[in-house]
Amino acid sequence: MIQQVNASGGIHDVSGFQCAGLAIGPQDKGRLGLVYAEDPATVGRAVYTLNDVKAAPVLVSLEHDRAGASKRAVLINSGAANAFTGRQGMNDARACAAAAATALGLAPTQIYIGSTGSIGVPIPLDGILRSIGQLVANKASGEPAARDFANAIMTTDTRPKQASIRYSHDGATITLASVLKGAGMIMPNMATMLCVVATDAAISPTMMDLALHEAIAETFHRATVDGDTSTNDSVFLLANGRAGNPVIEARDAGYRAFVSHLTALLEHMVKEMIRDGEGMTKFITIHVRGVPTAAEGKRIAFSIANSPLVKTALFGEQMNWGRLMMAAGKAGTGLDFSDVDLAVNKIPILKGSDLASPTAVAEGAASIKQPTIEIELDLKQGPGAFTAWTCDFSIDYVKINANYLT
Amino acid sequence: MIQQVNASGGIHDVSGFQCAGLAIGPQDKGRLGLVYAEDPATVGRAVYTLNDVKAAPVLVSLEHDRAGASKRAVLINSGAANAFTGRQGMNDARACAAAAATALGLAPTQIYIGSTGSIGVPIPLDGILRSIGQLVANKASGEPAARDFANAIMTTDTRPKQASIRYSHDGATITLASVLKGAGMIMPNMATMLCVVATDAAISPTMMDLALHEAIAETFHRATVDGDTSTNDSVFLLANGRAGNPVIEARDAGYRAFVSHLTALLEHMVKEMIRDGEGMTKFITIHVRGVPTAAEGKRIAFSIANSPLVKTALFGEQMNWGRLMMAAGKAGTGLDFSDVDLAVNKIPILKGSDLASPTAVAEGAASIKQPTIEIELDLKQGPGAFTAWTCDFSIDYVKINANYLT
Repeated sequence: MIQQVNASGGIHDVSGFQCAGLAIGPQDKGRLGLVYAEDPATVGRAVYTLNDVKAAPVLVSLEHDRAGASKRAVLINSGAANAFTGRQGMNDARACAAAAATALGLAPTQIYIGSTGSIGVPIPLDGILRSIGQLVANKASGEPAARDFANAIMTTDTRPKQASIRYSHDGATITLASVLKGAGMIMPNMATMLCVVATDAAISPTMMDLALHEAIAETFHRATVDGDTSTNDSVFLLANGRAGNPVIEARDAGYRAFVSHLTALLEHMVKEMIRDGEGMTKFITIHVRGVPTAAEGKRIAFSIANSPLVKTALFGEQMNWGRLMMAAGKAGTGLDFSDVDLAVNKIPILKGSDLASPTAVAEGAASIKQPTIEIELDLKQGPGAFTAWTCDFSIDYVKINANYLT
Repeated sequence: MIQQVNASGGIHDVSGFQCAGLAIGPQDKGRLGLVYAEDPATVGRAVYTLNDVKAAPVLVSLEHDRAGASKRAVLINSGAANAFTGRQGMNDARACAAAAATALGLAPTQIYIGSTGSIGVPIPLDGILRSIGQLVANKASGEPAARDFANAIMTTDTRPKQASIRYSHDGATITLASVLKGAGMIMPNMATMLCVVATDAAISPTMMDLALHEAIAETFHRATVDGDTSTNDSVFLLANGRAGNPVIEARDAGYRAFVSHLTALLEHMVKEMIRDGEGMTKFITIHVRGVPTAAEGKRIAFSIANSPLVKTALFGEQMNWGRLMMAAGKAGTGLDFSDVDLAVNKIPILKGSDLASPTAVAEGAASIKQPTIEIELDLKQGPGAFTAWTCDFSIDYVKINANYLT
């Protein structure tokens, strides 16, 4: 049985982790955040953006992964992405990791780093180096410190995002907690998204990799805001083993329980991220069923989810099912659309590709006035299925991203 | 040498063609347009949307193509797309073609039909059937009749779009003319786009097919407004042979001259279409060079052209080159971006992936205040290149497509 996510939880719920966050100032913009693992045995694994343009902190964290699994801290700055900043950007990223390592008494390779903000903007290195001492001094295990970290990593997010989940297995109680920032440029593989997960589970680095990939496939890779993919996306997982469970080293029941709860936690986080999507007014779930394989379901679901015409229609609360079918058809799967069922918020709109009832469109239109919209499309041509999550496309999305203030 | 397009030309410039257009009314919405070829020897070929969901008029026109190349008319209604309208939609489309054929004294298979408007909306068949007699009676060869047709097929277009081009080859003077409607849902393969091309060239149906595909690859398939692909897109080409040129039956110099001028004409039309894109304020050309193959250039160019973050930044006149590189990287070509050159309106922004000069961003920002933006990205990794055309993404795009009137 999967336990409930504690939506008001956070890193402070996991024993052995400390957090801090502060403004870099006074003359520099941006914020700095730290998650610190007290236990020398803590291990870390991470998953990064698939964009061919990877930011310097991603490249440096990848170097640190290659040096071994011992990880004791995650250092994140917001305000500058340190992406496409050339050799200087790499030097800056290494200097940050080195300074944090010195202040914490660690090796640089025990530190993950992340940056978020504008691409092409160098990080305020001097300001960061001046602030790291205070950041390390501030680190603490309580809720206020966890909140400081969650606030420090925000960019266009309108609110911090944290949660935790706790379950018992094999006589041990295991806690996982996550903190995340969104909010635009969200597309599988992945988002302008930085996510830290801390757990007291005892689990091998190999199984952490496996668990991260399984959970991300079911969560972040189902989400899209605008089809854009950031250069900086990273999910960091730190595990300190304090729960005292038998170490998870194989695909056994202990692993299953861990993956299930990690997935539940990340599903909560990714939905929170979409709900805080830039300018969004509707949370949209798209289920595609009855396709030969899940891959075809994914193509159709994302073709709908990323269609500007679908997203603007739903923003306008128009029951424009024709745009849904246009977007499904342009996915290019070659499947037949002459006998499909479409439902919106459980109201049948199409049955066998004909209008389900004379009142279907009016009923659908009434139902999409609510902030949550569920679209179900059944092609009746096989056992495959895929679910995607997205949001609508509003006037405010354009205003936010054009810096166009009226 | 390629002749200039006559931007104020139209179907009336081609001998042997007549046009008409009228409102379907009084109780029905929408308009009806007709292009009629006087000569019994006129042949037609067409290219249609690649969306898996094809509208009834596309399916019926495809049937008429299979029946032979003799084509004498194009009948288009605006206001209802007759897409996803099931068996009734197919019956309605066939009834339109049959009625036009009767009124014109032709076989139904000699008629192309097209529809544009909302998907899922049946055409006002009774109104159309009642109007066809008047439409046929109105057909005429002058400029006013050509304008009536151009106006009749508009939906969210803000202006009619017509042009012609004339050249001499092998002792004959050949004229091509085109009329087109856009304006959103524009993406290669193709757009919510209906285009009629009339010519007096003598050319075999086989070479017409070849010419259409060559010219479309260089024009419509370079254009995107929002990444969406309509269910109804069609390009119809009618040729009556009146120019008296030696019939184009092979890939010879006569064919080359024909394709070059057809391409020049369609390039003009597609640029006009983008300039009339829904809510657009900027015409954007994206050249990608230095890639191993054109296919990789196309992926990168369209990844940039369809990125909402790029499009909203350009709408906001922000020189956010980081978003350009993000969008280039998310194309997933696996190419290296550590030594690329980027120029905007001929101003070098990046040289070897570093800022080209301290003033580059400011100069670039000043230049993108103009309504035409040219982006050049050179990856320096091969001989491949691709050029795409698009427009920005404005608040008005969202308002138009959300029916959100403030």
